[in-house]
Amino acid sequence: MNILEEKIARDGVFKEGNIVKVDGFLNHLVDMDIIGFIAEEIARRYSGQQITKVLTVEASGIAIATAVAMELHVPMLFAKKSLTSNMDKDTFGADAFSFTHGCTNRLIVSKRHISKEDSILIVDDFLAEGAALSALIDITIQSGASVVGCAVAIEKGFQNGGKIIRGKGYRVESIARIANVDYKTQTVSFL
Amino acid sequence: MNILEEKIARDGVFKEGNIVKVDGFLNHLVDMDIIGFIAEEIARRYSGQQITKVLTVEASGIAIATAVAMELHVPMLFAKKSLTSNMDKDTFGADAFSFTHGCTNRLIVSKRHISKEDSILIVDDFLAEGAALSALIDITIQSGASVVGCAVAIEKGFQNGGKIIRGKGYRVESIARIANVDYKTQTVSFL
Repeated sequence: MNILEEKIARDGVFKEGNIVKVDGFLNHLVDMDIIGFIAEEIARRYSGQQITKVLTVEASGIAIATAVAMELHVPMLFAKKSLTSNMDKDTFGADAFSFTHGCTNRLIVSKRHISKEDSILIVDDFLAEGAALSALIDITIQSGASVVGCAVAIEKGFQNGGKIIRGKGYRVESIARIANVDYKTQTVSFL
Repeated sequence: MNILEEKIARDGVFKEGNIVKVDGFLNHLVDMDIIGFIAEEIARRYSGQQITKVLTVEASGIAIATAVAMELHVPMLFAKKSLTSNMDKDTFGADAFSFTHGCTNRLIVSKRHISKEDSILIVDDFLAEGAALSALIDITIQSGASVVGCAVAIEKGFQNGGKIIRGKGYRVESIARIANVDYKTQTVSFL
């Protein structure tokens, strides 16, 4: 097990319905040693690839994407879930159903910040059904940029997202790939 | 001028109503050199202070707060704007009116992640009327933790937030403190 997997096994909380709670170190309180490890590992796996920007979606993807962008020395772009009064009106957008929030979010990115000259690494905290990654891939394609690949901290290997996105020919790297979780015994196993 | 101020002067867009658009390098597309400079400068100004956690609010505070937390080698905690299905129900909360979104957000933090043992540095991207910082201070006080101070990338010095929060006795550090902006000439001056 790598240090993210060890952390999930020790400090993750598993709830009925295959819920993996990692709010103590990844997506509410965020442990910088863990984030640093994830970022180094993602950068290592994509070393040698030309990457011009890291793309994620607010909010819990931002911490990891920031650390990855620092490793790669490229800018980080985060898709927004709502149009604010200050934002450009000219955007690329795609819908993503959030199982955590129980609603569909429209992910949007200003057209000024992504273009066909870009080579995009898509980063997020979780991959479950793949809704967020699929929307971010869609936005990248709309812009004419190329998708170098995707990288997530945690993939729920027992859900369909990984299969769907890899099935479309995209590279997906997961730093912890969960095979299954048992909320009764509070145990987890990895692929 | 420091490099953040130079960047604002060169790449910021100023619109009627004292709007300062920095989505090209700070809160949509995020420049890692700028974020790194802001984080180093915040860490330098608070060096020697005991800080156990960096507290911010989703979404645009997260990138800067992550970089600051990395500099300080402490965890980063971000307040959420909505209760997700996976989140603890036992939370500290405070309301913050967002002028950018035109609505009041309830900022919430799980009670498990902040306590009276903590010494909190509050970080955000912008300080204008001080609504977000005030809510984060309120949450910190509710938890019994101590507020070491606040730090923001950009303070709109012509709005009231800085005066309100400093008036309550809290230290506020701003890396760029704008005196005024002129949308007609697209110029900015700093305090």
